[in-house]
Amino acid sequence: MTARLDSVLSAASRARGPLAASSPGQRAGWLRAVAGALEESREQLTGVAMRETHLPSGRLTSELTRTAFQLRLLADRAGRGDYLDARIDHADPDWPMGPRPDIRRMKVPLGVVLVFAASNFPFAFSVAGGDTASALAAGCAVVVKANPGHLELSRATAAVVTAALAAAGAPEGTFAMIESDEDGRAAVVDPRVAAVGFTGSTRVGRMLYDLASARPVPIPFYGELGSTNPSVVTPAAAAERPAEIAAGFVGSFTLGAGQFCTKPGWLLVPASSDLPAEIAKLVAEAPAQPMLNERIRAGFGAALGDLAGTDGFAVLAGSVPAADSDTALDARPVLLTAPIAALLADPELIDREVFGPAATVVTYEHIDEPAALARLLPGQLTASVHAAAAADPDAATLVAALSGHAGRVLWNQWPTGVTVSDAQQHGGPYPATTAPGTTSVGTAAIERWLRPVAYQNTPADVLPYPLRDDNPWHVPQLVDGHREPA
Amino acid sequence: MTARLDSVLSAASRARGPLAASSPGQRAGWLRAVAGALEESREQLTGVAMRETHLPSGRLTSELTRTAFQLRLLADRAGRGDYLDARIDHADPDWPMGPRPDIRRMKVPLGVVLVFAASNFPFAFSVAGGDTASALAAGCAVVVKANPGHLELSRATAAVVTAALAAAGAPEGTFAMIESDEDGRAAVVDPRVAAVGFTGSTRVGRMLYDLASARPVPIPFYGELGSTNPSVVTPAAAAERPAEIAAGFVGSFTLGAGQFCTKPGWLLVPASSDLPAEIAKLVAEAPAQPMLNERIRAGFGAALGDLAGTDGFAVLAGSVPAADSDTALDARPVLLTAPIAALLADPELIDREVFGPAATVVTYEHIDEPAALARLLPGQLTASVHAAAAADPDAATLVAALSGHAGRVLWNQWPTGVTVSDAQQHGGPYPATTAPGTTSVGTAAIERWLRPVAYQNTPADVLPYPLRDDNPWHVPQLVDGHREPA
Repeated sequence: MTARLDSVLSAASRARGPLAASSPGQRAGWLRAVAGALEESREQLTGVAMRETHLPSGRLTSELTRTAFQLRLLADRAGRGDYLDARIDHADPDWPMGPRPDIRRMKVPLGVVLVFAASNFPFAFSVAGGDTASALAAGCAVVVKANPGHLELSRATAAVVTAALAAAGAPEGTFAMIESDEDGRAAVVDPRVAAVGFTGSTRVGRMLYDLASARPVPIPFYGELGSTNPSVVTPAAAAERPAEIAAGFVGSFTLGAGQFCTKPGWLLVPASSDLPAEIAKLVAEAPAQPMLNERIRAGFGAALGDLAGTDGFAVLAGSVPAADSDTALDARPVLLTAPIAALLADPELIDREVFGPAATVVTYEHIDEPAALARLLPGQLTASVHAAAAADPDAATLVAALSGHAGRVLWNQWPTGVTVSDAQQHGGPYPATTAPGTTSVGTAAIERWLRPVAYQNTPADVLPYPLRDDNPWHVPQLVDGHREPA
Repeated sequence: MTARLDSVLSAASRARGPLAASSPGQRAGWLRAVAGALEESREQLTGVAMRETHLPSGRLTSELTRTAFQLRLLADRAGRGDYLDARIDHADPDWPMGPRPDIRRMKVPLGVVLVFAASNFPFAFSVAGGDTASALAAGCAVVVKANPGHLELSRATAAVVTAALAAAGAPEGTFAMIESDEDGRAAVVDPRVAAVGFTGSTRVGRMLYDLASARPVPIPFYGELGSTNPSVVTPAAAAERPAEIAAGFVGSFTLGAGQFCTKPGWLLVPASSDLPAEIAKLVAEAPAQPMLNERIRAGFGAALGDLAGTDGFAVLAGSVPAADSDTALDARPVLLTAPIAALLADPELIDREVFGPAATVVTYEHIDEPAALARLLPGQLTASVHAAAAADPDAATLVAALSGHAGRVLWNQWPTGVTVSDAQQHGGPYPATTAPGTTSVGTAAIERWLRPVAYQNTPADVLPYPLRDDNPWHVPQLVDGHREPA
């Protein structure tokens, strides 16, 4: 353990008490201060980000807007106190199982949260991203492990966050950043860390999950790992609007050079339809885009080469770069194809994520085949159905089957572009995440960083404010089984 | 894998679809049917239980009442549909981060849940206990691993549950029981199992948690393991009512022969008070009680001998049976004592659970010492403070410190006797449980067996009922950020 890590974790640990005692309104104020400070530094931050990530200015500007919005939405919800899930059961001598004591329950922050930043969203899933925002909203101290792909931006963002929190009166130690992989791994197993958030590859995420689970005191590990986001086009939809579906698919899988966890990696289409040809034409015309960095560019080539070389797979448009031979950042979109029999024979192939602008058109003869595949699907962040505008008998069955394996099911839309709202669900069964009951995007993301505590027979002046009968913070309370308006 | 386990898991797997499609009202009906059937079989079941567990008739009768009540309370809450956490965000072109699609989110059952029954509550934490009830309420299929300590009762209970579910129209495969440890371990790593509930020892619980976490597809493991439930008596309380506190403590730690996960194993008292002597007098007079079985009786002797032989510990009342030398079931209460310095020097001693009628009186010189110990405490199911009736300046500080390490904090009450209600929290940081964000008792126990799914842009007739605008099941909905009454 480096001295720097030790001092960061000690400071975070000391902040736990004051943070837990802070009111929802105070936390909301801190989050709004961070949002405002990010917007004030927009020009500086996006400039650094362009240099480090090669993402275009418009994308980075709108990602910063999204990041500030996310902080403000979480501030609003934190301020309302819904996430406290305050419950009051008054003493009841007639409770049917026997006399009930006065018992009251609310959620308290878990403590120090360690966040591993992602490479592909330098704002929204990085230093001041969703994990940081939701953990601060929950009243946790946050230590971010910077992503090495945008270290200068991470430092600049951390400086903005730290200054904004200090100016807004957050306790010292509320936020800090660490940089080295060694410090990251040491922090996962440090007794002062109470939970981990992670967005990244299945390989690294599983390694860190295993570390967290093997601790003498295991801790919750909320990892968003891999997803390939299959989309099924019904025969009726393929006949109705092939051009629209082809354009939507190519736009979605090439967006941001295909570097999204929600990139639609598999499109299941009727073998008899025009879709493979339509899509291939668009892919052949699609421009090259720079990828985030050389490591990711090399990984794209290697993963694509592996998949293209798998039995039953062929290249339909573009060309597979030789693994490791091409160190320039640019990547052109590539389209593979395979018959659905290849996936039905080996459903784990679906986990083969190619991070970058590539996707596979999978052809089926009968709609029963994608329905069968849906039931074998490894866990996914998203799965989509493209149905005909009018009644489409195949589509409802597919939605039901896919919802058993994915966190978000889409109808006639594409999975890239993840809105931040109360109803958003960005998660799913493994390997999409290591915690299927949770989301890393949307206001429900706060729930990951909390644990319930019940207070039995406790005098009003000792109880935390959310559990008092006079409800001084005006939070929603479930009182004797009935929901009271705040 | 035995053929029997394979067929049980296949049947449970087949039940997932119909269970997920069932309405809250249907599930409530199934739970009520089980509650009624248990009560109808009360005489038969308690008779078998007395023979197998040596627990007294009154205790078993009231535990069966509690178990039926628990099923009915979960039925009521399942019927209301709160646990679905239904959220509807309508499409919003003016959403500040960019146009928002229509997105709707609800909780769906995880699938097949494996429940390891506990030895010490042959009804409430066994075949038809809290894990089974909450998993059925969530719409999961349940496979119970019977506790070998009451196998005949487990078979009888399973027969009652199976018949009641079938008569009430639950899908085939909704419930089954397995018996061998081998089948239990094989089920933990079977791909058809989606989550595990466990109540038992830290040793076995950790072994199974490690299996679940090391699977190719790790699954949630909700284990309730060990807790020693420290109670602190402030100087003012010790001076005010020593006799009452002594009687309460001895009553609580000897209840049910001390075979409760909430047994108060440590009582921290001022060294100068009369409490050690008062308590010792009561313990010396307390009768022997039969323990659950010979294995547990032998384990009690061994663990007690180990703790009594630890540096700084002494026997204050009763006598330590030699390990493994006494195979009769009866155990007399034993009281140890130690100075708080011994625990401050080695806080992990607090994890040394002695399952049976033994406890340790820990003496302190100054209230700062228990406050310091509270901050070093391993995770606990409960922690208690005994304060003076009037303002007691030490007590609020202790409550705040203890709430950082326990799932339930009590004031002037004892932790045995866990009511089932909306505000109950039976959980806590490791080693109390493997999942600090959850509870295994109370209505919030349902949340463990669910995961969220979002539906984006989905037509009304394809959406699950809880997410439709016309809300045919009348469940609570959060609509565009505002809570709508059901």
